[in-house]
Amino acid sequence: MGDRFADLYSDRAHKLKASMIRELLKLVMKPEVISLAGGWPSPDTFPVSESLEIFKDILEENPDYALQYGTSEGLFQLREFLIGWAKEHDGIEMTLDDIIITSGSQQGMELASKVLIDPGDVVLVGLPTYFGGTGAFSSYGAELVGVSLDDQGMRIDILEEKLTTLQKAGKKAKFVYVQPNFHNPAGVTMPLQRRQEMLEIAGRFNLIIVEDNPYGDLRYDGEAVPPLAALDSEGRVIYIRSFSKVFSPGIRMAWVRGEKALIRKMVIARQFIDNCANTPCQYILYEFCRRGYLDRRIQQNIDYYKKKRDFMLDALNRYFPKELTWNRPEGGFFVFFTLPSSMDGKELLEEAIAHNVAFVAGEPFFIDGSGKNTIRFSYAQPSVEEIEKAVKIVAEVIQERLRK
Amino acid sequence: MGDRFADLYSDRAHKLKASMIRELLKLVMKPEVISLAGGWPSPDTFPVSESLEIFKDILEENPDYALQYGTSEGLFQLREFLIGWAKEHDGIEMTLDDIIITSGSQQGMELASKVLIDPGDVVLVGLPTYFGGTGAFSSYGAELVGVSLDDQGMRIDILEEKLTTLQKAGKKAKFVYVQPNFHNPAGVTMPLQRRQEMLEIAGRFNLIIVEDNPYGDLRYDGEAVPPLAALDSEGRVIYIRSFSKVFSPGIRMAWVRGEKALIRKMVIARQFIDNCANTPCQYILYEFCRRGYLDRRIQQNIDYYKKKRDFMLDALNRYFPKELTWNRPEGGFFVFFTLPSSMDGKELLEEAIAHNVAFVAGEPFFIDGSGKNTIRFSYAQPSVEEIEKAVKIVAEVIQERLRK
Repeated sequence: MGDRFADLYSDRAHKLKASMIRELLKLVMKPEVISLAGGWPSPDTFPVSESLEIFKDILEENPDYALQYGTSEGLFQLREFLIGWAKEHDGIEMTLDDIIITSGSQQGMELASKVLIDPGDVVLVGLPTYFGGTGAFSSYGAELVGVSLDDQGMRIDILEEKLTTLQKAGKKAKFVYVQPNFHNPAGVTMPLQRRQEMLEIAGRFNLIIVEDNPYGDLRYDGEAVPPLAALDSEGRVIYIRSFSKVFSPGIRMAWVRGEKALIRKMVIARQFIDNCANTPCQYILYEFCRRGYLDRRIQQNIDYYKKKRDFMLDALNRYFPKELTWNRPEGGFFVFFTLPSSMDGKELLEEAIAHNVAFVAGEPFFIDGSGKNTIRFSYAQPSVEEIEKAVKIVAEVIQERLRK
Repeated sequence: MGDRFADLYSDRAHKLKASMIRELLKLVMKPEVISLAGGWPSPDTFPVSESLEIFKDILEENPDYALQYGTSEGLFQLREFLIGWAKEHDGIEMTLDDIIITSGSQQGMELASKVLIDPGDVVLVGLPTYFGGTGAFSSYGAELVGVSLDDQGMRIDILEEKLTTLQKAGKKAKFVYVQPNFHNPAGVTMPLQRRQEMLEIAGRFNLIIVEDNPYGDLRYDGEAVPPLAALDSEGRVIYIRSFSKVFSPGIRMAWVRGEKALIRKMVIARQFIDNCANTPCQYILYEFCRRGYLDRRIQQNIDYYKKKRDFMLDALNRYFPKELTWNRPEGGFFVFFTLPSSMDGKELLEEAIAHNVAFVAGEPFFIDGSGKNTIRFSYAQPSVEEIEKAVKIVAEVIQERLRK
């Protein structure tokens, strides 16, 4: 019977496409499937007892505010806390007017899109890049331009080349979207010099940088690199920080820091989007931070995920054929593989699912349809036993294909 | 210093205007001010002990899911519950595919706008109408056309007239936005016949009806009237239902029911807006419903607010001059006043604030700049003593002005 009211849809609605990956994830949620697919954190890391303790205190002490509407910029106390926290952890100076609490980092990308993108405006993204970003930008009619990554993140020489071409064509690039730490899906981290070069280019071409840092707290080894937001002297960086991987994704809590007038635009836009973030969870998160639980939890999560990363890298070394290449992530959740060019990631995935192992084929992360011979593993959710088993199974499937 | 990156803003960002009312509410949050202003529910009605009891059970029994990401359509169990609940309370048949859980009814309006409005499309709204609706529609570039209200809600003859004129001008009207129950701000309720007439017109002109019903559960007297969604045989109604006034606004929980293909579009759009609603609060709400607390709470809230409404109407009869007219709301939170035509609601408000009483001037509810001589009172938050005091003070301010 189809779409009865299709003639009433907006152009944008006609173009909407479900995330291939999110749709896939629904299919592989069967208990017999070992999933290396989702970027979801492990429930082992959820702060269950702390949340309950805090919620009890809040409802005893402050129910009138904790269950009421909040402001569109977010809970005052939480923003105030984050000013100090961001200075200490990220080396970022900010005031209460530079920050908005958002319903997850996805809403940060939505808000950045809403205040910056007119249909046809160019947004530069990595090849590959996180689809939650490109989905948001596309929904506002952005024209996406891809910039290749190497093992140090986005290639600055290609970025500059693309910007020069766009400029010559009279096209307005609004921003470049980057995940400098433990990139999703590529797993790579931008070194300091490249961050500085990116800022220099953004200044030269008058671009905003949307810096998405969902995994930044989870560094397992190597030296921390300052976020672009900390290196930025012009207020050019919209910095998106999430609590999904260090508290819980279900509470939908993130924050966005940016130039004051830009944040103000986001706050006003937000009044008509969802009015305010979830109030009780803002109070829970604030108390979680204030009581010192956040830093403790981050350390616990580092220990927890580092073990899994090490185990997966070890299993890969033991089982995976040398025809594949992959990165060694210093943090975050992801290992990204380049298969032999003749091998199709989606076909490999189908075969793996038949053997009850799921992962993600890389193609949806490439806006130009390339990346067919890439796949992504996450070590966040499976146990080490499951990692061992899954890596072994996928290795066998690959070996089988290589022999064909 | 102004907006440093203004040349990078989207057109929409340049046009963004803060809600006058939401900005005002910030100013009147001083403790010495008695506020009849906000549409906020009273914290006296928040289900504090039930929430805590439930959260404890959830975190003991099901923390792995309760703190994890959820699906974009919302918690399966909650949607399933709402199917039965909506049938019983609203006479509405629906399936799991007809419903999406949203982050407040504001997000319902945002999603309806996203999937329906292209810049320049017409949306018909009441004169007056709720500014959260018009704010969302405008942010997508809708052209708003106002239709007068009388004591039975939107005037169908004027609606038809406007639609005919639009049709002749070749303009596409996408939907009409209505609050048929205890209208914000007008307080009026559409009788059955007018609802049927509106559906007939919507069919004739091929319009969607966006039916916003945030106060529907709070009827203090008179006969319940079926929602347009229950009378609709064509799937033309997008029905928005909120838990803000019968549970807590802070949890940001509402649901939207609509034609399956339309809801599917909203679900996909939502993947790139905020991904999913707050998971722990969806579980809390589901358990709150399942344990039978919702219906009990609704009855308690009816008793609680009815008393205040009766008290305010009585105080108005005692103190307010006969030069003003106002409605007798059968439910919800609002009494809406028409002042003598020479009297300005904003000036009256300023004077009242000087006497430590706040309410809302009606003008922002009128998209055509009319309604200067209107004001809105809410009896939801103040105590009966405060209502008495505030009504008396405003009456004196009005009497003073009438004598001038």
